[in-house]
Amino acid sequence: MFNTVEILDDGTVRFIDQRKLPTEEVFVDCCDCDSVYNAIKDMVVRGAPAIGVAAAAGVAVGVNCIDTEDMDLFKIEVNKICDHLVSSRPTAVNLFWAIERMRNLVAKSSADSVSKLKGEISHEAAKVLKEDREINKSMAYIGAELIDDGDVILTHCNAGALATSGGYGTALGVIKAAHEQGKNIEVYADETRPFLQGARLTAWELLKEGIKANLITDNMAGYFMNKGVIKKIIVGADRIAANGDTANKIGTYSLSVLAKEHNIPLYIVAPLSTIDRNIPDGSHIPIEERPEEEVTHIKGIRVAPEGITIKNPAFDVTPHKNIAAIVTDKGIIRAPFDKGIKELFNK
Amino acid sequence: MFNTVEILDDGTVRFIDQRKLPTEEVFVDCCDCDSVYNAIKDMVVRGAPAIGVAAAAGVAVGVNCIDTEDMDLFKIEVNKICDHLVSSRPTAVNLFWAIERMRNLVAKSSADSVSKLKGEISHEAAKVLKEDREINKSMAYIGAELIDDGDVILTHCNAGALATSGGYGTALGVIKAAHEQGKNIEVYADETRPFLQGARLTAWELLKEGIKANLITDNMAGYFMNKGVIKKIIVGADRIAANGDTANKIGTYSLSVLAKEHNIPLYIVAPLSTIDRNIPDGSHIPIEERPEEEVTHIKGIRVAPEGITIKNPAFDVTPHKNIAAIVTDKGIIRAPFDKGIKELFNK
Repeated sequence: MFNTVEILDDGTVRFIDQRKLPTEEVFVDCCDCDSVYNAIKDMVVRGAPAIGVAAAAGVAVGVNCIDTEDMDLFKIEVNKICDHLVSSRPTAVNLFWAIERMRNLVAKSSADSVSKLKGEISHEAAKVLKEDREINKSMAYIGAELIDDGDVILTHCNAGALATSGGYGTALGVIKAAHEQGKNIEVYADETRPFLQGARLTAWELLKEGIKANLITDNMAGYFMNKGVIKKIIVGADRIAANGDTANKIGTYSLSVLAKEHNIPLYIVAPLSTIDRNIPDGSHIPIEERPEEEVTHIKGIRVAPEGITIKNPAFDVTPHKNIAAIVTDKGIIRAPFDKGIKELFNK
Repeated sequence: MFNTVEILDDGTVRFIDQRKLPTEEVFVDCCDCDSVYNAIKDMVVRGAPAIGVAAAAGVAVGVNCIDTEDMDLFKIEVNKICDHLVSSRPTAVNLFWAIERMRNLVAKSSADSVSKLKGEISHEAAKVLKEDREINKSMAYIGAELIDDGDVILTHCNAGALATSGGYGTALGVIKAAHEQGKNIEVYADETRPFLQGARLTAWELLKEGIKANLITDNMAGYFMNKGVIKKIIVGADRIAANGDTANKIGTYSLSVLAKEHNIPLYIVAPLSTIDRNIPDGSHIPIEERPEEEVTHIKGIRVAPEGITIKNPAFDVTPHKNIAAIVTDKGIIRAPFDKGIKELFNK
């Protein structure tokens, strides 16, 4: 298992550059808030849980650059850093959750010096990262109960180690845990245009783990469902509303409709930090529109004519009625999801 | 309007190289049967009606190379050419239809010399091409009745001039005719992985025609249907069974399920030569599996890790129950399709 996000001893945040995978394994070191912001925005690092960890680490490395001993001034600057990082991407709620956690720490700290508070912030970022690994591992084994020997599982985008700080991942973590349990499973990975997270990242992770895997283009998923090949669909999430509606990578909604048509269960795997109880349903989740070049160019090569209008919504919302279960680090939620989510948070 | 397939005075078959579009407009000249075979197999030319025309032209240019005056020997060689061309691709029925037409001509010819028969074959190939243009134009205007002012139409793959010998095309022909009628329409084109016919060819054609168009990745189609943007779906066909089940580019089946979910009509546009009355339903249509490199590489650039298993079915079958109507050159067929198809052939 490898590190997607790592915090070095001097606070430097190190990312594996996911834009370069699978052909190159290159790392990007970020020593200030701006470079972490750019790494999130430009998708050096992506995946909701990984973005959360990256943001927390970004606050920690960012405050190291604040040159004041005045506590009030320092806190104003910390808030500016938080405001900046929070604007890097709009859909994944883990980003807001992580930044909020850092803000809360600062607000509630009883540190009597800036250097002490810097230490606390740094410690908190490391804790966010460590918890992410632990949460994903326990979630993977909770979810593995849903997987039967002989299952053929479809997944979309990348919800693996690369979508988290490292280790198991979310949806792919469940698959890894089932594999570790000795279950004979096979995976179909959608390539996931336009950013090709499935082709570049999921295929790469599955090969590393020695799990039997097939790569298909997104428009083939329905064909393999109709043929009876696919038994289960497992994906991650970028934000889950209080009623269970789930924003995830563009194409997940279509898979959910196809799953329903073919009586295939669709499972969402995400830590509690992905659930946004402030929004009642999916219609309130902002959908990020990404740059045209992601569609018109592939690895810098133009594939569409100049002048054509591009739409590039990065996410869509799967209504809770199309979801069989949501696997979290605290347990599995089934319909009615609003009730289940409430209960889990009150545990 | 431009020529996708052209037969030059000396019999040379000229194709626009569709693998190079939209960045380069290059032509490929084929002077023998083998080069036409390779052009079809390697997708220099693609699209069911275009493949039919290419095959007929391939027979004509191929027989020019037969060096005998003995009629029996000549006919044996013609049949070999037909056998070879017919094996270039397995799904599009227009290929078989065109080759059958050439075989019939030879079988029924009363020509008393090889050179006369060569002339008849050449004339028949030119006729297949000319009829393709005429059929598509009349089909375009028949189908345009289904399009309303203000419609936003989704299309998949390329069923335009580039999928036929040139001119209108099939599905895109209907859109062009509606546009010519002054209807204010807008198109969403799926990019259509892995070969990107939508991004490279449909987007290019729509820009040339001045029709308002948006390019999306295949997995975005469901999102725009769910948003209420898409009013109609229009696609071509590679083979239609006697009951209306339709093989078309991979991903069409998924669109048909999504269309049903959102109460959007899905129209198939194809000439009668695409209907294969010898097969009762779609389960009998062979689905071509294309090379892995189409998925692992885009324009020669690797996007997936080495060693990953690839599935690449080029087509899928849309059941007739998901089809609102089939537009042909002889009229529009609606359910029950088996009855409608029978009636049209008996007209």
